[in-house]
Amino acid sequence: MSGVTSVYQLYGNPGSFEKKAEGIALGLTIGSWTDLPLLEQQQLKQHKGNVVSITEFENIQHPSKPEQIRAEIKIEYPSVNFSADLPAILTTVFGKLSLDGEVKLLDLEFSPELLAKFPGPRFGIEHIRNLLNLHNRPLIMSIFKGVIGRDIDYLAEQLRHQALGGVDLVKDDEILFDNPLTPFEKRITTAKEVLRQAYEETGHRTLYAVNLSGRTSQLREKAKIAKELGADALLLNVHAYGLDVLQELVEDDDIQLPFMAHPAYSGAFTSSPFYGVSTSLLLGKLTRYAGADFSLFPSPYGSVALEKKVALSLGEELTKASSVKRTFPVPSAGIHPSLVPLLMQDYGVDSIINAGGGVHGHPAGAIGGGLAFRQAVEAELAGIPLAEAAKQHSELRTAIELWG
Amino acid sequence: MSGVTSVYQLYGNPGSFEKKAEGIALGLTIGSWTDLPLLEQQQLKQHKGNVVSITEFENIQHPSKPEQIRAEIKIEYPSVNFSADLPAILTTVFGKLSLDGEVKLLDLEFSPELLAKFPGPRFGIEHIRNLLNLHNRPLIMSIFKGVIGRDIDYLAEQLRHQALGGVDLVKDDEILFDNPLTPFEKRITTAKEVLRQAYEETGHRTLYAVNLSGRTSQLREKAKIAKELGADALLLNVHAYGLDVLQELVEDDDIQLPFMAHPAYSGAFTSSPFYGVSTSLLLGKLTRYAGADFSLFPSPYGSVALEKKVALSLGEELTKASSVKRTFPVPSAGIHPSLVPLLMQDYGVDSIINAGGGVHGHPAGAIGGGLAFRQAVEAELAGIPLAEAAKQHSELRTAIELWG
Ligand SMILES: [Mg+2]
Ligand SMILES: [Mg+2]
Repeated sequence: MSGVTSVYQLYGNPGSFEKKAEGIALGLTIGSWTDLPLLEQQQLKQHKGNVVSITEFENIQHPSKPEQIRAEIKIEYPSVNFSADLPAILTTVFGKLSLDGEVKLLDLEFSPELLAKFPGPRFGIEHIRNLLNLHNRPLIMSIFKGVIGRDIDYLAEQLRHQALGGVDLVKDDEILFDNPLTPFEKRITTAKEVLRQAYEETGHRTLYAVNLSGRTSQLREKAKIAKELGADALLLNVHAYGLDVLQELVEDDDIQLPFMAHPAYSGAFTSSPFYGVSTSLLLGKLTRYAGADFSLFPSPYGSVALEKKVALSLGEELTKASSVKRTFPVPSAGIHPSLVPLLMQDYGVDSIINAGGGVHGHPAGAIGGGLAFRQAVEAELAGIPLAEAAKQHSELRTAIELWG
Repeated sequence: MSGVTSVYQLYGNPGSFEKKAEGIALGLTIGSWTDLPLLEQQQLKQHKGNVVSITEFENIQHPSKPEQIRAEIKIEYPSVNFSADLPAILTTVFGKLSLDGEVKLLDLEFSPELLAKFPGPRFGIEHIRNLLNLHNRPLIMSIFKGVIGRDIDYLAEQLRHQALGGVDLVKDDEILFDNPLTPFEKRITTAKEVLRQAYEETGHRTLYAVNLSGRTSQLREKAKIAKELGADALLLNVHAYGLDVLQELVEDDDIQLPFMAHPAYSGAFTSSPFYGVSTSLLLGKLTRYAGADFSLFPSPYGSVALEKKVALSLGEELTKASSVKRTFPVPSAGIHPSLVPLLMQDYGVDSIINAGGGVHGHPAGAIGGGLAFRQAVEAELAGIPLAEAAKQHSELRTAIELWG
């Protein structure tokens, strides 16, 4: 049967979960069952939510209600009940239920027929690599810093320095919206020229992701303009808009640009251990199904950090085998060159090493910062300890001295 | 200065909040300040986030970290930093910050200049009352029940019974999406005919709110079709789409229909005491600013219940003096006729009494259920105790016997 299977985390008394699960399965579908006449049961059977499994973790107590234990329940919802869009799916599986006490949505398993209705990334890891002609190493990305209130020349210079340092991607600050100093179109055309020039000088190609912002219905037109102006990629604050907004932009054949999903505002859904939606579902699976080519998330290393286990399962969701293409994991925040071996161990070569302070804060500026990252990646790929490589490379040496 | 002032709840060690607040105010705006040259400070001053106040609650300890106390901090963000849309505002005030540990967004105060860019309800309480020609009493609403997998005749009969019971509004089940058995357009035209007929029989007018669902970019066209077909009102699962999606539909002069905001999925943001967004901000202020004429939320009386204080402050947000029109509070779930005096005490006459089981579960069916609510409201308005009124009204008597 085509449908979606939800995995929920609940807390409750041992033995209480079956009744709760049945209540959810019926309450979010046909409402009642046992009191229905047989004929109606036959009619409604294909619409009925079904409890697939109940797993009680007897050893995991609720931290503040010791009589309660943790449980995971799986409930299957038939596709016939909802249109094949994320707002309908989220409303079905977690609409009313999200308001019903301590219940967290951990995962959604789409049947193949249902998943076939979702685009996944248009580009995906392989195609992004082809665009950059870069294979077999993590890509390096950096972020504009402190650009609010600055003019286009300031941005251009910052971009130029980042490009000259040899990073592969530069993204806009997610809080840089349309503004008179650095309007959307001007950012695209200016960046294009800066990056063309840097490419002529260095032979290294850097892509720029511009922040697609504004009213929801205008995003499509703005994205098309970006495409016409030759933009490389688009950054979107997906969770401030809605996942379906991303999906429609990805599906639009007149846009056809790589999308970078920013996690802004997503912590409002994902941060609680008891409520909301799991990080690996929201920033992982659903962001991939909706079609982001890159998914940014807090790295497990910095001060604004995800738990390591969560951050790894998120990377796994973005890249594991599926009928949709793979999305680049972009663990962000707190990244400096010495973390490169750990990053590559945790996320492999098919990931993005993304730094803000770790590029701009380098004593030799963003150029030195970018170079230090490139040097660290090369060393790690060659199996050379960073401390060893630092002897040959002053930028890497300086970075290690500064950040350890 | 035009801008938005955010109120955040944090926990931390006493005396630690000033540094934290300054970090947020700068981190979400210009990035740094004290190390900037004076000239740049002058340039960037108008873009700088400002800490407005820090309130430490010395007597409120963190429940699991006793060394930490609760604090509320207020930070002002200048409008010049963001476009006047909710995705930009939410990203500015709670984008990255939502991922930064235990911080909850409690409130947003819009400057008058900023608020002027938001529509608020097109109709609002007064205009909805005019539509129904009903003044000086709460409106009564009921909900379709168990309609998944049912055909249009089943819906029509259920609607007819609800209308004959004298309810003022009937809303679709939020989990009823477009489907072959009861397609969107057919629901509108069928309901229209059913309600016309009921009106001819009883002289009482009932409005029907159809669930506007599907892909984001198609909602506008579907809403226009609904308008052309003579729909009364639209139900929207706002939080599964995004607040800006609601706002754009409300602003569209070709639609001009009342909007009912359903709270489906909102619990994923609002339920945690430590993370996410407050209920009164999300389902109250922002739902009102974005333009919903009705905001549904879990009543403080049922099993799926909001805390009383929260549910009351939400009602307050929807109806207090503002430059935008007032939104009907619709406390929902667990409502039966005996609760009418309490509901009217808590929410006043400018609210909706909304029942599902409390209408359909009446021993005399939905007709009896609707009548019992009408009788309860009339008694309360006349200052007659329900037990007294029940002597004259068998439907109310039966309801009180059943639900207490
Ligand atoms: Mg940023
Ligand atoms: Mg419902």
